[in-house]
Amino acid sequence: MLLHVGVIGATGYTGYELLRLLHRHPQATLAWATSESAAGKRLCDLYPTPDHTPLIRMEDAALAQADVVFLCLPHVASMAAVAAVRAAGVAAIDLSADYRLPDATVYERWYGHAHTRPDLLAEAVYGLCEVNRSQIAGAGLIGNPGCYPTTVNLGLWPLARAGVLWPRVIVDAKSGVSGAGRELRLSSHFVEANENLSPYSIGYAHRHIAEMELILGPHVPGLQITFSPHLLPVSRGILSTLYIDIDPGLSETAVRDLYAAAYADEPFIHLLPPGQPATLRHTVGSNRCAIGLTPLPRPGQWIVTVSEDNLLKGASGQAVQNMNILFNLQETTGFI
Amino acid sequence: MLLHVGVIGATGYTGYELLRLLHRHPQATLAWATSESAAGKRLCDLYPTPDHTPLIRMEDAALAQADVVFLCLPHVASMAAVAAVRAAGVAAIDLSADYRLPDATVYERWYGHAHTRPDLLAEAVYGLCEVNRSQIAGAGLIGNPGCYPTTVNLGLWPLARAGVLWPRVIVDAKSGVSGAGRELRLSSHFVEANENLSPYSIGYAHRHIAEMELILGPHVPGLQITFSPHLLPVSRGILSTLYIDIDPGLSETAVRDLYAAAYADEPFIHLLPPGQPATLRHTVGSNRCAIGLTPLPRPGQWIVTVSEDNLLKGASGQAVQNMNILFNLQETTGFI
Amino acid sequence: MLLHVGVIGATGYTGYELLRLLHRHPQATLAWATSESAAGKRLCDLYPTPDHTPLIRMEDAALAQADVVFLCLPHVASMAAVAAVRAAGVAAIDLSADYRLPDATVYERWYGHAHTRPDLLAEAVYGLCEVNRSQIAGAGLIGNPGCYPTTVNLGLWPLARAGVLWPRVIVDAKSGVSGAGRELRLSSHFVEANENLSPYSIGYAHRHIAEMELILGPHVPGLQITFSPHLLPVSRGILSTLYIDIDPGLSETAVRDLYAAAYADEPFIHLLPPGQPATLRHTVGSNRCAIGLTPLPRPGQWIVTVSEDNLLKGASGQAVQNMNILFNLQETTGFI
Amino acid sequence: MLLHVGVIGATGYTGYELLRLLHRHPQATLAWATSESAAGKRLCDLYPTPDHTPLIRMEDAALAQADVVFLCLPHVASMAAVAAVRAAGVAAIDLSADYRLPDATVYERWYGHAHTRPDLLAEAVYGLCEVNRSQIAGAGLIGNPGCYPTTVNLGLWPLARAGVLWPRVIVDAKSGVSGAGRELRLSSHFVEANENLSPYSIGYAHRHIAEMELILGPHVPGLQITFSPHLLPVSRGILSTLYIDIDPGLSETAVRDLYAAAYADEPFIHLLPPGQPATLRHTVGSNRCAIGLTPLPRPGQWIVTVSEDNLLKGASGQAVQNMNILFNLQETTGFI
Repeated sequence: MLLHVGVIGATGYTGYELLRLLHRHPQATLAWATSESAAGKRLCDLYPTPDHTPLIRMEDAALAQADVVFLCLPHVASMAAVAAVRAAGVAAIDLSADYRLPDATVYERWYGHAHTRPDLLAEAVYGLCEVNRSQIAGAGLIGNPGCYPTTVNLGLWPLARAGVLWPRVIVDAKSGVSGAGRELRLSSHFVEANENLSPYSIGYAHRHIAEMELILGPHVPGLQITFSPHLLPVSRGILSTLYIDIDPGLSETAVRDLYAAAYADEPFIHLLPPGQPATLRHTVGSNRCAIGLTPLPRPGQWIVTVSEDNLLKGASGQAVQNMNILFNLQETTGFI
Repeated sequence: MLLHVGVIGATGYTGYELLRLLHRHPQATLAWATSESAAGKRLCDLYPTPDHTPLIRMEDAALAQADVVFLCLPHVASMAAVAAVRAAGVAAIDLSADYRLPDATVYERWYGHAHTRPDLLAEAVYGLCEVNRSQIAGAGLIGNPGCYPTTVNLGLWPLARAGVLWPRVIVDAKSGVSGAGRELRLSSHFVEANENLSPYSIGYAHRHIAEMELILGPHVPGLQITFSPHLLPVSRGILSTLYIDIDPGLSETAVRDLYAAAYADEPFIHLLPPGQPATLRHTVGSNRCAIGLTPLPRPGQWIVTVSEDNLLKGASGQAVQNMNILFNLQETTGFI
Repeated sequence: MLLHVGVIGATGYTGYELLRLLHRHPQATLAWATSESAAGKRLCDLYPTPDHTPLIRMEDAALAQADVVFLCLPHVASMAAVAAVRAAGVAAIDLSADYRLPDATVYERWYGHAHTRPDLLAEAVYGLCEVNRSQIAGAGLIGNPGCYPTTVNLGLWPLARAGVLWPRVIVDAKSGVSGAGRELRLSSHFVEANENLSPYSIGYAHRHIAEMELILGPHVPGLQITFSPHLLPVSRGILSTLYIDIDPGLSETAVRDLYAAAYADEPFIHLLPPGQPATLRHTVGSNRCAIGLTPLPRPGQWIVTVSEDNLLKGASGQAVQNMNILFNLQETTGFI
Repeated sequence: MLLHVGVIGATGYTGYELLRLLHRHPQATLAWATSESAAGKRLCDLYPTPDHTPLIRMEDAALAQADVVFLCLPHVASMAAVAAVRAAGVAAIDLSADYRLPDATVYERWYGHAHTRPDLLAEAVYGLCEVNRSQIAGAGLIGNPGCYPTTVNLGLWPLARAGVLWPRVIVDAKSGVSGAGRELRLSSHFVEANENLSPYSIGYAHRHIAEMELILGPHVPGLQITFSPHLLPVSRGILSTLYIDIDPGLSETAVRDLYAAAYADEPFIHLLPPGQPATLRHTVGSNRCAIGLTPLPRPGQWIVTVSEDNLLKGASGQAVQNMNILFNLQETTGFI
């Protein structure tokens, strides 16, 4: 099988990374790539690459000729674009936040915009591969997870689904600057970010909390997440340090067994051995998520460290993994 | 007044920084500097600097000709060296951990070595300037605080002394690589640390917890600190993100008033305005400690962000500040 | 003596650095600071600093109350601003390129703008301290040198003035990103500059060549400079590697003697010993210029390595040094 | 075809990179990997990776069961190891310097050791793929090129073979720290290398000059290379800025035609369009070599900028490319 793939919004960091992954994917070929701001140019005009992919306007893209379309647009902008893709009868994998939250009112509360297509929300599947694999397989529309929530949800899912996670969760997260995109802003200016570390949107202010509540909330009554992202002076990678309480009766072995059971045979989950916390270098450049488990002296208190490459498992890599699931390909195709 | 200053162990990062500060200090002059490993060389043989300071063995140092001696030795090694300085009747400011903890058994539990000079421990003052200023003024021996504890203690002192801090404190700390010293080790190798972020000694494993318990413990019954240091890919700077609970009846204004009262007129404390968390760039290159206060939606839950330059306020800068206090100089002398 | 100092254009990196230096200068006090874009704000609203200096419009600045005014404006914009300062009878130190080149036609050729004040050009002195000290002492208007030319001119001046430098000079220069200013641009975006190295304006395209020809040209008939700047993934610092030919009859000792004679007693020139090339760490954070001399096996071929902090000796530091010379202060005042 | 591959010396940066490439190579499988220092451990004990490859002693490796063996040992150590592989009748690709220089006396002059196996030197082919492809195809022993020489040789080969390159060549090269290996040394210590740039072994001191003379020398009588490497604060990547003179009668078009002809259809050579110099980001993470051509105003003077990933095209990537050539596989297999 050779999938014909369209990419809408190809010139941001996630779009560029997606093209790189698709070029290496043995069962995918790029049908077209769009960019409203750079239509008429080639990718090599925008990035230091020999890739001559021409960029076209979305209105000139032959939507129906694609088997699947990835959308790398900002939120809000993606709503109507996804609708156009679906109207053409083509599967859509949306990397924006627009189709992640099934409840339009929750979306509106966090993003401050009305959702114009609640009908499409109803069919969308949240594409957290290791958790929602079976629903993804038959989906027409996948809301690809956010970078931060992927670390938190994968890091705590085994505990949450077992019903042993207590409601108060503290997430101290650190992300490389590519997570803020290619748009120019002072906080991403080299001299400002280099040799620096900056907390931002700390408290209960960051939109990504909604996705954590989506996955973990149903299993943790009264879930209360404190989420503190920090801007880290690296290009890529997220490390989340999670401070949690669980049922104090669980032994270390029992906890490790929960993770082993949840992630048995998962090719992209790297459970670290006792004593080894996750670091960025465990995952940057790969589609993996690394998870380290550290018990504290007091029973029931744990630190879970989780890392991923924010542009791969946290965005474009997981999107390709979703495509592989959707089309029943070997899930690791294109990665190894 | 011109103080004659000796430095023992001048060739590590804290010793080098100390010499740099002393050269700029208008009321101090370097009497001598020692290095066991580099005796016979000059500082410019070891660092890219025009500083020709000759390095001698400690046994060749005229201890008694100094008004004050700084010791930048590893712990354990510093015990006897401090004793020699004190025997010569000279004031000692020890940057190692050896004279920070007044209780020899606590020292032994954390450092795994018996303390050979409990008699000197009895006279030592813990040199956290903003908290212990009055005892420092008359001290013969000052145990200069550790880098991490300085952020935590200064960040929580106003709450602790007011009796409103609850016992469970989570410290997610991130430090630049100079904190690990100039000794070669794989974790400080450029390729390993660059573009990386690594938790280490997380849980209840790091010795610096003892100093936090020293300052905060008497005011917080049952104090229980979770301390997670991370190695950050920058040369200098510590950012500690503190997750705490306090008396939920305290308004945001009341909390800010506690800090304002505790640090009124403190030249090296930078209380940040509402909405502004501390970042490394607030303090790196200065002797300041910056503190940001972020209330969470639930009453009583706060995030306190604290930054400092680990080699300045976290080590050599605070040591010079201690010297200024000790000799009744303007406390900012040599810094501005 | 206490100098009252005005700063025009205080919110770029050179302006900010200048304020930092002036605060530490024992014989200077800031009279006022201007920013057209940030008038009404304080410095601490723009930078992570406790500095509350208010920013005003230039039209509201009491020019005549200053003893000296520093201008940190873009070129062209500085022409009229300098004229206003001079019209108020106040000494001006201009950090832009507008008053560096005495010949208006040369200025126009490199900068593409007519020079509107050739009359002021006639009185301006090129503020390369170690070379033009005597003219600076009595100047009313100083054109503060560019960052790159300072490395090249100081690195080759001893050879040029001795008449032994041959005309073909290759300058491979590398600069930290702060040299490109605080204005947002893609090449200064963290993800683009980090882990990268980019040549730019290579060939005979960079305006800074004019200043090298200004200082070295009169002593080197037919001088022909190839200048290749590279953007380096560091915040601060310039390293220039100079490939030159000189009179092949000169021994290594003779060459070193020329440098020793030219820079005898210069407090900010660090001549490195044989075998030690200049590195960024020799100078970053200081007002020094470090110079290393490496002979090649073929007589007459040399490599000269030169480093400086581009914001200090390459901009604001040299500007303060010029102020010290202008007002007959100890030249190192405020630096050590 | 499935090649069985052995790797000797798997735990340095080139060995580790090689294993990563081999895991992704669809026509290669790892037979065994050796490490004298880490025998008995697994790769995941040394690196943050899920790769459990066991490490054995070379004496325990089934040499004859491999179709090809890569050697990632230090020079001198590789001499006898290669001989053992060849004695087992297996093809060897040696990443050390031991079999790059066909003339044992040249080797001894640069490396200061006698070459104990001049007989094997006689059969070795210098594995610069784009230049020596036909000899590589039938070779039993390939001396894989050094990282720096690959940039210089590929950057100048089209001019040298056309006989238009003049003898004096200046190479200002900048390399990431991984080029210095994983062995601990002060110059690779994070705090020393970060925010720094250091020339080293400048002049006529660096061994890599020999490989440049090997490839370019026969075509450029009197070739005289000035080679100045600099240590760059990045993990990976080399940028070489080459200052050359060529026949002044050649037009820019004629020069570009020489490169186009030399590298027509080369999958790993990225010739950049006019006006675009090479940067690290053109190549890091790929097996490509990017080449930019910049004419200077004076006829015959050019700047050639060349970049590569020092661990890929500069080491392990080119080694795999050599394997592909040796076994008549598609040359890009395993890379795209």
